[in-house]
Amino acid sequence: MKPPKDLIDAIQKNNSFLILTHTTPDGDAFGSAIALKFLLEQLGKKAEIYAEPAPQQYQFLPGIGLIKNIENLQSSILKPVLILVDCNTVARISYKKEIIETINASTFSTKLIIDHHIETNKTVDASSIKWIEPEAAATGIMIYYLIKSLNGKITPQIATNLYTAIIVDTGNFQFDNTNEEVFQIASELVICGAKPSYIYQNSFESWSENRFKLFIKMLNRVELIPPVAIAFISKEDFEETETSEPDTERFVEFLRILKDVKAAVLFREMEKNFIKVSLRSKGDVDVSRIAIEFGGGGHKNAAGFRIKTSFEEARRQLIEKLKIYNVLSGDLDFKV
Amino acid sequence: MKPPKDLIDAIQKNNSFLILTHTTPDGDAFGSAIALKFLLEQLGKKAEIYAEPAPQQYQFLPGIGLIKNIENLQSSILKPVLILVDCNTVARISYKKEIIETINASTFSTKLIIDHHIETNKTVDASSIKWIEPEAAATGIMIYYLIKSLNGKITPQIATNLYTAIIVDTGNFQFDNTNEEVFQIASELVICGAKPSYIYQNSFESWSENRFKLFIKMLNRVELIPPVAIAFISKEDFEETETSEPDTERFVEFLRILKDVKAAVLFREMEKNFIKVSLRSKGDVDVSRIAIEFGGGGHKNAAGFRIKTSFEEARRQLIEKLKIYNVLSGDLDFKV
Repeated sequence: MKPPKDLIDAIQKNNSFLILTHTTPDGDAFGSAIALKFLLEQLGKKAEIYAEPAPQQYQFLPGIGLIKNIENLQSSILKPVLILVDCNTVARISYKKEIIETINASTFSTKLIIDHHIETNKTVDASSIKWIEPEAAATGIMIYYLIKSLNGKITPQIATNLYTAIIVDTGNFQFDNTNEEVFQIASELVICGAKPSYIYQNSFESWSENRFKLFIKMLNRVELIPPVAIAFISKEDFEETETSEPDTERFVEFLRILKDVKAAVLFREMEKNFIKVSLRSKGDVDVSRIAIEFGGGGHKNAAGFRIKTSFEEARRQLIEKLKIYNVLSGDLDFKV
Repeated sequence: MKPPKDLIDAIQKNNSFLILTHTTPDGDAFGSAIALKFLLEQLGKKAEIYAEPAPQQYQFLPGIGLIKNIENLQSSILKPVLILVDCNTVARISYKKEIIETINASTFSTKLIIDHHIETNKTVDASSIKWIEPEAAATGIMIYYLIKSLNGKITPQIATNLYTAIIVDTGNFQFDNTNEEVFQIASELVICGAKPSYIYQNSFESWSENRFKLFIKMLNRVELIPPVAIAFISKEDFEETETSEPDTERFVEFLRILKDVKAAVLFREMEKNFIKVSLRSKGDVDVSRIAIEFGGGGHKNAAGFRIKTSFEEARRQLIEKLKIYNVLSGDLDFKV
């Protein structure tokens, strides 16, 4: 994997960069953005990251405190060069119209895109220099190659950020995207100072007692319709356990632990008649097609959508689609 | 890491081997034993493995069907050379006296030991050729180096077995023993044909619905006394869910997911007044010292013991020791 020459040139000839990433950023978004900022600073350049506040599990990342709140992004502080990281369209940066408008209203001399997600809207940002590698397990892998191309040094701080990016997007080396290259790079990052068990504990083993209680509530109510597991978290569940959406990270992944489960679904009631749905699958079961049917998106094994209806209706509609796509057998005897 | 010369010599000059491993074998035991058998066969030698039956999650291992049941081990079928794998004393092979007696009664021309556990009883097997590497993350890592030393070929079958050995003993790259060498070897095993997500799914995501129900029962009853989490599975729980001891594998590890938990304990009531206790910890908290106090043993972060008393009494005694070793504060206000 090699960054395109025009991307390298654009980095080398400019001095001031604005780094942005997607909404509800995860470990790959934060880790890649921070590692990129450190790389640019090694090259004697200025770089600022603006993003949504980091949840508690990413507070350990070296440099996380340097990220500025995207709410404070104003056109006066926009830099000449915009780099989108782990994100390939400005529309994905925020759900707030004002923020997208601020970015769109400003003129950048150059826009760079570094991402491993498939482009869903090719017409947007047509003027950008794009480096998109859907085969990369994480955007952190791409930043690793960018560092190599620019003769940067992988400091322990960069190693920790890139290692976090990799484990978050490979489910700590368990998803289909875990290949020899991922392990090769992980090995080098450990040599450069990344501490696997420390990073794992911070990223994945940092649940609060309230989050644990929410998880148990969810498990007690899981509906198993092999090969599908359906879980539901109500607004009351969040309130009773004093938790919120980020606390449900990795809940749906857990349901994959069942041998007979090939697809897992988590419904989260954010507000009355507003449900967020996460889908996960194993192997060849493609849940992105189902998410797209509902106006959402994602990868083959991890996708999601939002729906404005009741839980019962959302469940009914989803089960219909699971039947249409042959994830569920059409003649299964259960109440829809 | 390099196998000692006398071990290499003993393998090269002999032609018929008996491979044994520890009781309740795990992925490192099965994976290492099978990979070793395949290596010896590559070298034109005969090798048989005798072990306890493999639980369901290891049935996917290439070669698992070639393992013979240790119950059928008779002195007439003992081979001239004994190799203990992932185990350094005959006493650990079985809890059944007859089996140990059969092995001890026979005369081997050579005994080889390949293990990464610390020797607890140095006087036993003093005549053996020992290769013990407590720094190795898994015995599978040692078999990898043995293959290299003997110019063996890492076939896809061997790669799958060794990869399984590694992920089982590193908790899929999450424990303290995960280092650059582990990743380097994992990368090579993937190149040789190991499939990470397939192996992960078989080893770790193969829970039955009954096992899942047992897990939920346990979670509903977890006692959190930070930094300790205590869980309990009764004989009735096993009966009601139609599960047994092997179904509790990795249950206690799960409790590490809580940020404030530094040590987790699982009590399993095997029979009335017979409790098996598993201990897990993070970082510097050493639970092996506590297990040793009760006549058990293990590693710093993973240990266990058996106790013949009621759950209430076992819990009381354990909490006392947790206080003595300063895992729990002595003046904590909870009922002992």
